[in-house]
Amino acid sequence: MLTTNPFQDDKLHEECAIFGIFGNDEAAAHTALGLHALQHRGQEAAGIVAFDGAQFPAHRGIGLVGDIFGRKSVIERLNGFAAIGHTRYSTSGAPMMRNVQPLFADLEIGGLAIAHNGNLTNAITMRKQLVQQGCIFQSTTDTEIIVHLMATRRGSVVERLTSTLQQIEGAYSLVVLSQDSLIGVRDPHGVRPLVLGKIGENYMLASESCAFDIIGATYVRDIEPGELVVINKEGISSHFPFVPQQQRFCVFEYIYFSRPDSIVEGISVYEARKRIGIELSHESPVEADVIVPIPDSGVPAAIGFAQGSNTPFEYGIIRNHYVGRTFIEPSDEIRHLGVKLKHSANRAYITGKRVVLVDDSIVRGTTIRKIVDMVRQAGAKEVHIRIASPPTTHSCYYGVDTPERNALLAANSDVDSMRDLIGADSLAFISIAGLYRAMGQPERNGEAPHYCDACFTGDYPIQLTDQMGEPDKRQLSLLTEFN
Amino acid sequence: MLTTNPFQDDKLHEECAIFGIFGNDEAAAHTALGLHALQHRGQEAAGIVAFDGAQFPAHRGIGLVGDIFGRKSVIERLNGFAAIGHTRYSTSGAPMMRNVQPLFADLEIGGLAIAHNGNLTNAITMRKQLVQQGCIFQSTTDTEIIVHLMATRRGSVVERLTSTLQQIEGAYSLVVLSQDSLIGVRDPHGVRPLVLGKIGENYMLASESCAFDIIGATYVRDIEPGELVVINKEGISSHFPFVPQQQRFCVFEYIYFSRPDSIVEGISVYEARKRIGIELSHESPVEADVIVPIPDSGVPAAIGFAQGSNTPFEYGIIRNHYVGRTFIEPSDEIRHLGVKLKHSANRAYITGKRVVLVDDSIVRGTTIRKIVDMVRQAGAKEVHIRIASPPTTHSCYYGVDTPERNALLAANSDVDSMRDLIGADSLAFISIAGLYRAMGQPERNGEAPHYCDACFTGDYPIQLTDQMGEPDKRQLSLLTEFN
Amino acid sequence: MLTTNPFQDDKLHEECAIFGIFGNDEAAAHTALGLHALQHRGQEAAGIVAFDGAQFPAHRGIGLVGDIFGRKSVIERLNGFAAIGHTRYSTSGAPMMRNVQPLFADLEIGGLAIAHNGNLTNAITMRKQLVQQGCIFQSTTDTEIIVHLMATRRGSVVERLTSTLQQIEGAYSLVVLSQDSLIGVRDPHGVRPLVLGKIGENYMLASESCAFDIIGATYVRDIEPGELVVINKEGISSHFPFVPQQQRFCVFEYIYFSRPDSIVEGISVYEARKRIGIELSHESPVEADVIVPIPDSGVPAAIGFAQGSNTPFEYGIIRNHYVGRTFIEPSDEIRHLGVKLKHSANRAYITGKRVVLVDDSIVRGTTIRKIVDMVRQAGAKEVHIRIASPPTTHSCYYGVDTPERNALLAANSDVDSMRDLIGADSLAFISIAGLYRAMGQPERNGEAPHYCDACFTGDYPIQLTDQMGEPDKRQLSLLTEFN
Amino acid sequence: MLTTNPFQDDKLHEECAIFGIFGNDEAAAHTALGLHALQHRGQEAAGIVAFDGAQFPAHRGIGLVGDIFGRKSVIERLNGFAAIGHTRYSTSGAPMMRNVQPLFADLEIGGLAIAHNGNLTNAITMRKQLVQQGCIFQSTTDTEIIVHLMATRRGSVVERLTSTLQQIEGAYSLVVLSQDSLIGVRDPHGVRPLVLGKIGENYMLASESCAFDIIGATYVRDIEPGELVVINKEGISSHFPFVPQQQRFCVFEYIYFSRPDSIVEGISVYEARKRIGIELSHESPVEADVIVPIPDSGVPAAIGFAQGSNTPFEYGIIRNHYVGRTFIEPSDEIRHLGVKLKHSANRAYITGKRVVLVDDSIVRGTTIRKIVDMVRQAGAKEVHIRIASPPTTHSCYYGVDTPERNALLAANSDVDSMRDLIGADSLAFISIAGLYRAMGQPERNGEAPHYCDACFTGDYPIQLTDQMGEPDKRQLSLLTEFN
Repeated sequence: MLTTNPFQDDKLHEECAIFGIFGNDEAAAHTALGLHALQHRGQEAAGIVAFDGAQFPAHRGIGLVGDIFGRKSVIERLNGFAAIGHTRYSTSGAPMMRNVQPLFADLEIGGLAIAHNGNLTNAITMRKQLVQQGCIFQSTTDTEIIVHLMATRRGSVVERLTSTLQQIEGAYSLVVLSQDSLIGVRDPHGVRPLVLGKIGENYMLASESCAFDIIGATYVRDIEPGELVVINKEGISSHFPFVPQQQRFCVFEYIYFSRPDSIVEGISVYEARKRIGIELSHESPVEADVIVPIPDSGVPAAIGFAQGSNTPFEYGIIRNHYVGRTFIEPSDEIRHLGVKLKHSANRAYITGKRVVLVDDSIVRGTTIRKIVDMVRQAGAKEVHIRIASPPTTHSCYYGVDTPERNALLAANSDVDSMRDLIGADSLAFISIAGLYRAMGQPERNGEAPHYCDACFTGDYPIQLTDQMGEPDKRQLSLLTEFN
Repeated sequence: MLTTNPFQDDKLHEECAIFGIFGNDEAAAHTALGLHALQHRGQEAAGIVAFDGAQFPAHRGIGLVGDIFGRKSVIERLNGFAAIGHTRYSTSGAPMMRNVQPLFADLEIGGLAIAHNGNLTNAITMRKQLVQQGCIFQSTTDTEIIVHLMATRRGSVVERLTSTLQQIEGAYSLVVLSQDSLIGVRDPHGVRPLVLGKIGENYMLASESCAFDIIGATYVRDIEPGELVVINKEGISSHFPFVPQQQRFCVFEYIYFSRPDSIVEGISVYEARKRIGIELSHESPVEADVIVPIPDSGVPAAIGFAQGSNTPFEYGIIRNHYVGRTFIEPSDEIRHLGVKLKHSANRAYITGKRVVLVDDSIVRGTTIRKIVDMVRQAGAKEVHIRIASPPTTHSCYYGVDTPERNALLAANSDVDSMRDLIGADSLAFISIAGLYRAMGQPERNGEAPHYCDACFTGDYPIQLTDQMGEPDKRQLSLLTEFN
Repeated sequence: MLTTNPFQDDKLHEECAIFGIFGNDEAAAHTALGLHALQHRGQEAAGIVAFDGAQFPAHRGIGLVGDIFGRKSVIERLNGFAAIGHTRYSTSGAPMMRNVQPLFADLEIGGLAIAHNGNLTNAITMRKQLVQQGCIFQSTTDTEIIVHLMATRRGSVVERLTSTLQQIEGAYSLVVLSQDSLIGVRDPHGVRPLVLGKIGENYMLASESCAFDIIGATYVRDIEPGELVVINKEGISSHFPFVPQQQRFCVFEYIYFSRPDSIVEGISVYEARKRIGIELSHESPVEADVIVPIPDSGVPAAIGFAQGSNTPFEYGIIRNHYVGRTFIEPSDEIRHLGVKLKHSANRAYITGKRVVLVDDSIVRGTTIRKIVDMVRQAGAKEVHIRIASPPTTHSCYYGVDTPERNALLAANSDVDSMRDLIGADSLAFISIAGLYRAMGQPERNGEAPHYCDACFTGDYPIQLTDQMGEPDKRQLSLLTEFN
Repeated sequence: MLTTNPFQDDKLHEECAIFGIFGNDEAAAHTALGLHALQHRGQEAAGIVAFDGAQFPAHRGIGLVGDIFGRKSVIERLNGFAAIGHTRYSTSGAPMMRNVQPLFADLEIGGLAIAHNGNLTNAITMRKQLVQQGCIFQSTTDTEIIVHLMATRRGSVVERLTSTLQQIEGAYSLVVLSQDSLIGVRDPHGVRPLVLGKIGENYMLASESCAFDIIGATYVRDIEPGELVVINKEGISSHFPFVPQQQRFCVFEYIYFSRPDSIVEGISVYEARKRIGIELSHESPVEADVIVPIPDSGVPAAIGFAQGSNTPFEYGIIRNHYVGRTFIEPSDEIRHLGVKLKHSANRAYITGKRVVLVDDSIVRGTTIRKIVDMVRQAGAKEVHIRIASPPTTHSCYYGVDTPERNALLAANSDVDSMRDLIGADSLAFISIAGLYRAMGQPERNGEAPHYCDACFTGDYPIQLTDQMGEPDKRQLSLLTEFN
């Protein structure tokens, strides 16, 4: 039924968010609220699996968290003292129920639920092996590889999980719910985020700290790269099953993915974006009348740019939030109106003005082009664009929905060509050096940079096993189900 | 949403029907029509998996076949030259999507879809073993055991299936769709039915021959007990992978399950029912004014009884077919009206009359009691009941939804007590001997009776492995999902 | 969404059923059950309006009565001590919510709800007049004319209704619910049925007596032609606001519309049909092996024919009741399968036999043709058709959905041509004289026949005002709403 | 199904928006887009009626414009060269289909569709009169009074409308679609807005100019108070059927209702809000570290306040837009979390800071209290509140959803008590004088103020006929329908 993705825009997308809580009588309700706060990371499907000491009540659905879990009767059926949850941004086509997480399995040692944020880089390779061994996959998710590996190991949940982690490569954070514990894992490089929180005596895990704020919980700390934490009746314990690696946290979490009010690796996301805006105003200054953010994600950098350049900050572009789930434009004649469904020019601050538009990133360049066009039609005298990230030149294989390289504008054009294509008077991106400076990090060290910045540099910290050798044309599943 | 099963009645229920076709451009459309004709065997859910040479398009849903597959767009997406389908009567609770067949698996050797009518008697035992080996079950169906066994064997589809069949016990008919063939299997005793048909050059398989009539196909023959047929581009070939067993076809197929216009094991179901009615009129004659069937299933036996006793046959009870999917009676005061939602007395042929009510069977006795009451209120002078089957005294473990033994009226009461409880002036069942006579079989031979008649005799032809030893309390799945 | 009318068949259709009850705490529940029993008269939409002493809670919907009113919460909201209800067979296109009855209006004298079975023959004429006066129509129903006339009269409900009845022409039965009473009206000729029932001390009205049986109420009497009954706290009172007219009850109610277990004008419908079958066996005997009804409506006449001709009655055609709400045939190649979705041949009693097919009527002849074809394919030696009504040669304008005259097979062909077209070996209809004889009436008197038999004779008892003069092309409403 | 209004907040709500276009082949598509842009004025239901020269295709539904009109098939069925549309904010209870506009009537002179923004102040009085005359109301909307008055007048559409306008009192803008023209009307005081736009040669009407921007049309002018414009094949003509009145445009349109990018009566809404913020910073200065808007509506005034006070503007509160259609909090224990579903504190700019929160208005005070609490929990040193409107002390009867007076915080408390109740360190509202100054108007003249500011002053420009005399307890309709 969903004919157009209302969230379709010219952005990279974090594919998922995860949440888990143990020891709390309102486990499912807290999980639903936590997922609600994390929906900027994935709003197409969501699920919760709880555990009541005997059964694992579960509910999964397509749509917004509020719509899936908003009815009291749903939360009441998700009875239990522990729960994990997941929200999902599906990468292609209609979302399929069989891919909605958490996944669940009845193992020899009891029930097991898993939710996963990230991507395995040896998923196809592993899946092939497992199918050869007789494993039957229900979904096309990477996560199911972890489930099958755990099913075919021996020992306790922690032993099976530890053994499984040796087999998989990639960038991931996991929450696992078994009959006696909630487990959280972060990959050895710590590419994807995972934070620990506490409400009363109960621990919880989430992709971002904003999930704690909504329920009045407190942020304790980030789970460390390569750390595995076990939360059960005895409390919390830490394990480090991997060979230690250089930390390479995803810098795009600061640029766009995380919510501005989250604290990530100890740094305020909003503050980071503002500092990038200030740095950008110094690197690429421009004489202008007004600094205009492309809402909502461009706002903090635009405030920074305005403060750094001492130029007025104004809402020159208004965003319409009532987009609904579907909007097909009815004919070719008015198809070009597309972008205006979401944005419109606030003429009072555009007409006759020299305008600086600030946005967080450019991926394909489709939206920015239409916005520049709209701003010019509204009578802007000059249109300058400042982007609060370096040019996005490489695809991400670590759990982010990026287009193929040939669709990335910056992978195929230099800045001058991009400017012409977009139709701006000037265009500038923050430099890599400026980005590290703004983040308060030392100069980027080629040997051991602090962040994963592969989308800007092509320097991939984790081996891309599935990308090597001949491209494997085999689809993950021969089943094409309609529902 | 389904609050009352409109098909809930005092009947045993065949749990499933299956259908398969190979080599036909309209494979899915023919399968949908075949399933439509087989809905008396299961009308709560249905599914079709097709094969187009590369992919296996599939669609499964809850509800009637016409509602699930009635839209042209659905059939068009089920593109392919081969297809199998399944309709399901779910035994307890709300039907769950994850149990709707056909099941599908991506195996090392390609895609595999399976649909199954019947029951494995060692399902719990096998499931435990497979879970210990690391298999992950998605459904709670017996059928998934077959899928996992095939996934973990080696060799071709036929080799894997043959090897699998050695492991399982029970009463079953299967249709299997692989990348190169459609396969049909009937269990060694031939308890559950499976027939072969042909349209043009294309073979098809179905639970009953009425599925061929609807599409203008012709009935070729019954698949033999223990036979495995492979239908592919080369044509059809027969295999007999089992040690030969005494045939024990389910006699209840004649009494109630099969459609009256089906030909089963060479015998017309309608004719069989009529002959039972005639036999019953000789065994238990009664002086009466009118023979009244309990519609619709009692009709053929009532016609036989009327002919055998030379008494007028009349529709003294009218059935309302517009029952809809839900009907909750709104209060205690009118709850007792329940049965009238479906049946009403045709006073013109009841008032002042000596009435013989003929039905096919009595399970719990709940419906017949209300009908006798209704007929008495309508002014019947006498009410006699004649049942066209022996007393149902034992549960079925071979793919039929029967209540626990203590809910079977005949398991706990003799015929006199039953008559008093039901409130009839007389009550008689056909005898076992009369039943075999009516079916044209020699006298029942305790060593090797022709039919499975365990529900009347307790003589179970296939070992009930799961019923032996201590009852295993473990549920099949710890997951309780709501959707 | 409804793409094919599953009830589409070659029948005339009664367009509606009505029900009303006063003084009962379970008014809405009883009304829902009464409507359930009346669904053979209209199963596409239904509605109930109750009255609780202050408000008129209402619920109307598209679909089966059980689906619209099956949930307890719905009935509970329809609180009140009086209620009226309606089920509807919509004549063309998708059913529209705005035409679902009962209609309701807030009048100067309080709330008013009306439900209507029948047709006004001066509806277009009256509607035009009312629109000129400034009345705004919401529906395209005849019933709304009555509502507007009542709104613009003066005086009490009964005075307004009496005055209104002087203005309208047609065949109708009405139930009206006002703030102090339930009113029932039958048109002066009594063309459409309306019966009075009683449960405890409470009176009720219904289109047929089978609506009383379902709730354990008793049939009191038929409302007389031209009678207006007022049921309120004081009890029941009778009024006769019309100039008395010759009674002309619709004979097709006996032939097809009414349920076989209903008593109409003192005669059992089932008995009437059987007597027609007997009469027909004498009028048009045929040497045959088996008498086969076309189910379900042909059954009573076939039993009569079998008894009258002393030939075995057998279910040679089986009907599939699981038709669902939609069934599009997927391609031209299998479109001709249409009829088999509902009927199939029971070969055991067809092959090699001389078969007499008995049905109640032939309208367009489409279904009978396919059935004869099916029966021949099943190997019948001879196929004879006997129809338990005279040839249907004229359209009905009195509340029955009939095709235009040029679509009526008998209006355009004599019996021999019809037989050839249908492909039967012989074809016979009951004669008009035979019909009256079977009904126990004196020979049809051209001056004052006992029944309205216009569909067979063209003798229309009520003036067809809207059919006179030039055909008025103006549509009833310029609004075409989609929902 | 809608259990919690996701738009429920502490705001006054404009109840409707209207749109109309004539002479354009994409009339319905443009109307859908126009309504999409106007949804901030009403997002619970929407409808479109088009005219194709013969029929009036229509579609109305509950929900967002994108969901109701997003499918191509819907727009295609709304064929025609003219259309009007409406979006609705329903004031109480579940939205009812029968109240969804545009309303439609088949009049003697042809079809007529009407959509209406505003409120009639003599609606109950007129409705009573019309019911006495025999008019039947289908809805409980004021708009239907206009329809009935037009139906019972004589002459052309314009004559009937002119005559109707003499009878009604209130604040309203109307669009009317007849068989030959699109008509727009604005009430004599011009309380509610209506603007004229043009695309190519085609005129259009809308509540706000932002509806023109989305489709690339140009704003021509505001319709004048008391003006009636007729748009047809001949072009556009202006009529002034009323005695001229002092203009009294609703000042709250600037404060909250209109979209910031709209130009209303020649003034940019965003600019007006900013100027109020600046004025407020001068009237009620405060020593602070950061100016924080309550998003989204407080943003322009906060930017103004920041500029006026030379204090940094920061997004100290983050809003979650993924609220979905339902969200019931699952238990008392976490019910107090309510507000956090929508807002969260951005600690980096709150902790240890002296914070000025800027919002547009306070109605009940419920939301601001929770926000102050949240900001204090996040560690703010001081919390000051500045409100960009005067205290809201009176209810609106002119088409705005306001609570009863006793629920208005400012109607019952002085500013000091409000500050204490809210828990702020200081609280200030813009003064009436400051508001007029910011709007660039001369000092408020008691005789003839430029704006309707009754919600702040109690000075109601239009007589409240329905509010005079004894309160009339009679409900508008006795029908309570559930669907």
